[in-house]
Amino acid sequence: MTHTVLSSATKEIIIGFDQPFCVIGERINPTGRKLLAAEMAEGDYSRVESDARAQVEAGATMLDVNAGIPLADEPKILAESIQLVQSITDVPLAIDSSIVEALEAGLAVYQGKPLVNSVTGEEERLEVVLPLVKKYGAAVVAISNDETGISEDPNVRYEVAKKIVERAEDYGIPREDVVVDPLIMPVGAINLAGRSALDLIGRLRNELKVNTTCGASNISFGLPNRHGMNAAFLSMAAGAGMTSAIMNPLHSEEMTAIRGANVMNGADPECRNWIKTFREPSPEGEGGRERRTNRRRRA
Amino acid sequence: MTHTVLSSATKEIIIGFDQPFCVIGERINPTGRKLLAAEMAEGDYSRVESDARAQVEAGATMLDVNAGIPLADEPKILAESIQLVQSITDVPLAIDSSIVEALEAGLAVYQGKPLVNSVTGEEERLEVVLPLVKKYGAAVVAISNDETGISEDPNVRYEVAKKIVERAEDYGIPREDVVVDPLIMPVGAINLAGRSALDLIGRLRNELKVNTTCGASNISFGLPNRHGMNAAFLSMAAGAGMTSAIMNPLHSEEMTAIRGANVMNGADPECRNWIKTFREPSPEGEGGRERRTNRRRRA
Repeated sequence: MTHTVLSSATKEIIIGFDQPFCVIGERINPTGRKLLAAEMAEGDYSRVESDARAQVEAGATMLDVNAGIPLADEPKILAESIQLVQSITDVPLAIDSSIVEALEAGLAVYQGKPLVNSVTGEEERLEVVLPLVKKYGAAVVAISNDETGISEDPNVRYEVAKKIVERAEDYGIPREDVVVDPLIMPVGAINLAGRSALDLIGRLRNELKVNTTCGASNISFGLPNRHGMNAAFLSMAAGAGMTSAIMNPLHSEEMTAIRGANVMNGADPECRNWIKTFREPSPEGEGGRERRTNRRRRA
Repeated sequence: MTHTVLSSATKEIIIGFDQPFCVIGERINPTGRKLLAAEMAEGDYSRVESDARAQVEAGATMLDVNAGIPLADEPKILAESIQLVQSITDVPLAIDSSIVEALEAGLAVYQGKPLVNSVTGEEERLEVVLPLVKKYGAAVVAISNDETGISEDPNVRYEVAKKIVERAEDYGIPREDVVVDPLIMPVGAINLAGRSALDLIGRLRNELKVNTTCGASNISFGLPNRHGMNAAFLSMAAGAGMTSAIMNPLHSEEMTAIRGANVMNGADPECRNWIKTFREPSPEGEGGRERRTNRRRRA
């Protein structure tokens, strides 16, 4: 059984076929969030803090931290964000950058075993990122594209993933510490993207025997009712063998789909998590209803 | 490719792995509906009529018609209900009864090729139902239990299904006209029921190569947020190879899960059905928004 073990200073989580689906909260990312970008660039991490807390409260298993702000000192901001998030939550983190210096700055301050997000199958990326992953004893997201770009052919994407897994092993990184992102394409643009993604996820699980992740919301890009489509995709992906996703845990439709998939996959013993999440408040109005009402008021 | 072709007097539908999921509306069934039972027993089919129209409008591909009312003349009521429903909608029907005389009465008046619901693996059922199915050129739902009851072991349920398929072939009923119901158990009672159902659906598709159906809402029996769980199950089941379900098409969460699964399975070309269903109204308020507002008012 492939277990990717990740940790903070005080908490360990496992990504695996026999585990609840790992929800990696995507919110701490200034891409497309002008206000957050401006604040982070000025060293104001108040929104990073509130985003971290909200995502963990909503059920995130891990948090992704990205500080990709044009012209800003990304290594410094990423390291500071990671230190802040680690000081207020105990979930393990994914250190997310396309800049190697930023990855290293984040790894240097990280407490525990993080997930490096990410390496691709491009030679120059493999040669700089994998040694870093090995040096810090981290795990890594392997994105299945290479110098030739992103292939529409899932067999090519499978081969790229296989190459990265083998190269990681050459660097002494075990297969279970490589989490493959098969690259989810929008079904609005490529009509068979859903079926081919599900088949590829199945192959990655059964043949390559690796854990998998993805940017789940890509699937619904450009279409109406994105939450509904993301939810259907996430349930089906979890059923096909996907073990984590980088996603927004504040969206209840997607989270319900994942909680349901956990039950179906036998990863929610006695449905305890499902029942705890959705139990109706007692008719007497004590406890459950009270909290629910308060939460709505704050929102 | 296994195609179960069903028809009314004027319309043909196909159940198959490459087809949109077949939604069989379950509402025309007096079990647990006292008012409907009383009306049907008195020959008042007004609610049968409104239930038929509402389900087709909500997206049902077929309608199940059941007239199981204690002490009533079930053959007569079932035949009359079928004639009524066929006079107002053009979707094919499932003729649903545990009483052979009622099945025959329904078959005798049916126009087109219906789905007989159902036969089990019990010898006495096989011997009376299969000749009827053959005589009327119908298709049949095969429920995977036998004299020994419902096995918790999915391998036993698979073997029962296989036996029914083979026996049907002995009677001259081709494999594609047997739609297997693998019997969905509640996950609240049997924690691994979800996983074992999905695995069994996969085997029925890949090894026995039959279409499948189920009473989908059984999965969530006794649990909170049943619609959310049914939705996750339906998406995953469709992903695993389930090709139809007997369900309530008036529940939007379940229908969204199925429409999403159709997109993922490549059974919604250019996402046309998804877009038609969920398209946002135009900002100028013409057409779309107008209709939507009216619909809300009527609700």
